[in-house]
Amino acid sequence: MRVLGIDPGSERTGYGCVESSGSRHRMIASGVVRVTAGAPLADRLLQIHQGLTALLREHQPACVAIESIFHARHARSALVLGHARGVAMLTAAEVGVPIHEYAPTAIKRAVVGFGRADKAQVQHMVSLLLGLDAVPTPFDASDALAAAICHLHAVPSTAMAAVLPPAGSQRRTRSAASWRHFRPER
Amino acid sequence: MRVLGIDPGSERTGYGCVESSGSRHRMIASGVVRVTAGAPLADRLLQIHQGLTALLREHQPACVAIESIFHARHARSALVLGHARGVAMLTAAEVGVPIHEYAPTAIKRAVVGFGRADKAQVQHMVSLLLGLDAVPTPFDASDALAAAICHLHAVPSTAMAAVLPPAGSQRRTRSAASWRHFRPER
Repeated sequence: MRVLGIDPGSERTGYGCVESSGSRHRMIASGVVRVTAGAPLADRLLQIHQGLTALLREHQPACVAIESIFHARHARSALVLGHARGVAMLTAAEVGVPIHEYAPTAIKRAVVGFGRADKAQVQHMVSLLLGLDAVPTPFDASDALAAAICHLHAVPSTAMAAVLPPAGSQRRTRSAASWRHFRPER
Repeated sequence: MRVLGIDPGSERTGYGCVESSGSRHRMIASGVVRVTAGAPLADRLLQIHQGLTALLREHQPACVAIESIFHARHARSALVLGHARGVAMLTAAEVGVPIHEYAPTAIKRAVVGFGRADKAQVQHMVSLLLGLDAVPTPFDASDALAAAICHLHAVPSTAMAAVLPPAGSQRRTRSAASWRHFRPER
């Protein structure tokens, strides 16, 4: 099963395509849909739409995984984020790919083991789970990969067992205190 | 000059196409892009995209007029509104139609004469300015027509002189107190 994770933003939209085959996850692609800095918002939205359409057509994922609507602190930043997220959702619907939404805490729990992990911890665990030589950068890309992994974890599959133990397993759980001292290699 | 006003919303997206020819404004079309109530957000965004694409192709406006980003009180409602607004902006950019944004107060000033007018006052003045037999409904449609009229007013044109007096004119200005007692016919 192939999943495209998307982390939308009006300036950088992260993406990460993960395939689960047999006993392991494999990264197919990851990166950022770049837009012209300082361009009008409508032009940036068009670039995001074109970039995601090309990615969906190239990698043909079975579905898209995206962070669910979160409660932004500021209405204005939520409004701008909404523009990019709306375009990402539209693009998937247009290509006919189903969308699965996961709360940020659920994504962190699925990848790191607890819901308050920071971006560096997510990045580090994503690279371990995908067997990468280096951590995926920038954070937008690793966050998108984490959303894809979260969906693969949520879908019952024997293929998952070898990669991620079931929810609540001791192996996945690390106390918040121990993570506070965790420093991934840069 | 033909302008398409858009009032985006995830449940109802109002539109209003206005043409300024010679000495008067004429309404070409107005209404609401309806979406399937209760459908997933991605499907509703796709319906908005398809509806607006069809309207832009049918009426071929020179530009689109839309309310500028406002400061919503609640981040969550701003985020959802942002989805529909992002799709509206993307659709215009995709068809290659320039977008002009106006603050809500500027639109109300252009149509009613002061920036704190309520929706019923806007609706009433839109019907007067366009010479309509009845007020355009629902509010989403009259708000979209008002955005289009605002743009026609903002663009210097001799055609505008007969319809809307210049900014600051006494004829357009009515005190907030007098509007408080204004009740348009229903």
